[in-house]
Amino acid sequence: MARAPLTPLAVSLGDPAGIGPEVISKCWDNRSAFALPTFVAIGDPRSIAAVWDGPIELVEDPRQADAAFDYGLPVIQLNAPRSDVPGQPSVAGAHTSLDSLEIAVGLARSGSAAAVVTGPVAKEQLYAIGFSHPGQTEFVAERCGVSPGNVAMMLAGPTLRTVPVTTHLPLSEVSRHLNSALIEARARAALRGLERNFGIVEPRLAVSGLNPHAGEGGQLGREEIEIIAPAIAALAAEGWRVTGPHPADTMFHARARANYDAALCMYHDQALIPIKALHFEDAVNVTLGLPIVRTAPDHGTAFDIAGQDRADPRPMAAAIRMAAESAALRAQAP
Amino acid sequence: MARAPLTPLAVSLGDPAGIGPEVISKCWDNRSAFALPTFVAIGDPRSIAAVWDGPIELVEDPRQADAAFDYGLPVIQLNAPRSDVPGQPSVAGAHTSLDSLEIAVGLARSGSAAAVVTGPVAKEQLYAIGFSHPGQTEFVAERCGVSPGNVAMMLAGPTLRTVPVTTHLPLSEVSRHLNSALIEARARAALRGLERNFGIVEPRLAVSGLNPHAGEGGQLGREEIEIIAPAIAALAAEGWRVTGPHPADTMFHARARANYDAALCMYHDQALIPIKALHFEDAVNVTLGLPIVRTAPDHGTAFDIAGQDRADPRPMAAAIRMAAESAALRAQAP
Repeated sequence: MARAPLTPLAVSLGDPAGIGPEVISKCWDNRSAFALPTFVAIGDPRSIAAVWDGPIELVEDPRQADAAFDYGLPVIQLNAPRSDVPGQPSVAGAHTSLDSLEIAVGLARSGSAAAVVTGPVAKEQLYAIGFSHPGQTEFVAERCGVSPGNVAMMLAGPTLRTVPVTTHLPLSEVSRHLNSALIEARARAALRGLERNFGIVEPRLAVSGLNPHAGEGGQLGREEIEIIAPAIAALAAEGWRVTGPHPADTMFHARARANYDAALCMYHDQALIPIKALHFEDAVNVTLGLPIVRTAPDHGTAFDIAGQDRADPRPMAAAIRMAAESAALRAQAP
Repeated sequence: MARAPLTPLAVSLGDPAGIGPEVISKCWDNRSAFALPTFVAIGDPRSIAAVWDGPIELVEDPRQADAAFDYGLPVIQLNAPRSDVPGQPSVAGAHTSLDSLEIAVGLARSGSAAAVVTGPVAKEQLYAIGFSHPGQTEFVAERCGVSPGNVAMMLAGPTLRTVPVTTHLPLSEVSRHLNSALIEARARAALRGLERNFGIVEPRLAVSGLNPHAGEGGQLGREEIEIIAPAIAALAAEGWRVTGPHPADTMFHARARANYDAALCMYHDQALIPIKALHFEDAVNVTLGLPIVRTAPDHGTAFDIAGQDRADPRPMAAAIRMAAESAALRAQAP
């Protein structure tokens, strides 16, 4: 029986000098063991050949990827200015990584790809070529016509999902950037994402406090009383199942985690410390609030180990698998 | 052969209306399964009888505890003004908990007890009777003649130990309370404690950054450059094995934890989120930098479940066991 062609996932290679090409190639190598669906890589195939001996199948259209996937790693080739040496990032490589991201998002927006999975990029190099977004998340949001304030970055592992309200800020500036509207917007994106991407009916969101012991009734800070609690009340009034503000230190043990589907955290490390402590190898970075599904492995370019066959492909495999599952759930949604 | 009498541990009951009396009684019940040494409880025996049916052996001196321990829970009785109802804290109970703490520390200082393990107290009630310390740790430090800045609170679990530099501060005030001298003092207390209480030769301390990505070279905050790195350099110049500042989010996964014996963290939740995520049932609060050994379970009075036979004695058992191990190590030290 002929197999119906599947809509593949689009996977951007990320920075050609980082570990993106290696982990994506290793995902194809281990596609059966990792239970991965058809995906097509987008980038400079020379950056793959530099670190991997396996077969590359150049394709021009994602529709060709399904047939090619049995024979090699399908790659949509970019016109890249020059090939990069693993571990040695360059401005040319930054251009390639940005092009690859842009094309991957375009394929997903047009429906030619079922979802986007993004390889790690080097922000410093991107800034050098005029990239003005804090990260890929905000770039993808803009290309999808969504305000960055209305998307949420979720770190999703097997037993914990966390969403930071603020991200790349000095710790001393977190308090002044927090406000009820931002907390509510992130919470809504998180809650709708739990429904749409994870198929959770009536999702439960646990909201952390900012201060030790969630402020201890105002004695250790007033943000809980003045900013966080009002946001929770507003969300509850909309019918969402939201609890908190909870003391952050007692939110993440196994028994506590059983009480919610995601934790909304006030700052970067409050969200990332527990997820990486518990799920360093299999946490996936998911962007919620977009018209498309976008995931990424929760690691960087790791230039220090690029080209040494030492990169662990499991985080990328987890990102590809989660993207496929979320895309399938969204396709089935009424 | 007659057994030589052992120096017992002194265990303060904590607030008589909290779960202290219950978990300490359950520790005696399970003394074999938990592998506990002889200990003597200090407090109001009525608060034990209110929640436990087992045998109480009133003793007047810790030297009587070893003989009594086979027959019942040894208790040094305090002149308590009235018995408290479980779950209903009172000013009288606060007096009892403070007396019990004071006597326990005195017994350890005089050598009549091998170490102090403290049951949970209610800070609000203590403040109401004029207690002016942030917590029991600072009280014990003062009674031992040690400045609070020179002690360190360590949370110690089977695979992770963390020490916060600052503790009960609003998050927005952490930065202005950080300074190199404080970081160095806490680090020295932690490092000497790893040697003395845990018997670790050439202990390794990993120091966290304050900001996301440890400040990313100054782009996300300058405390790493101006405060934390100089402290690390000063400690290294003294010959200590100290690394950092490390990005806090990637410090606590299993592979990272293998590289150090304790993590020095900049604020409360940075230290407590990972330890409680990983070791909620068996993390012990240890005070380092004292002439005596002092441990405590890492939980509060839990008035909401007091008197309902629901409290988990494992954290208290872990605290008693660790106190005994540390006391034995110190006794053997040259």
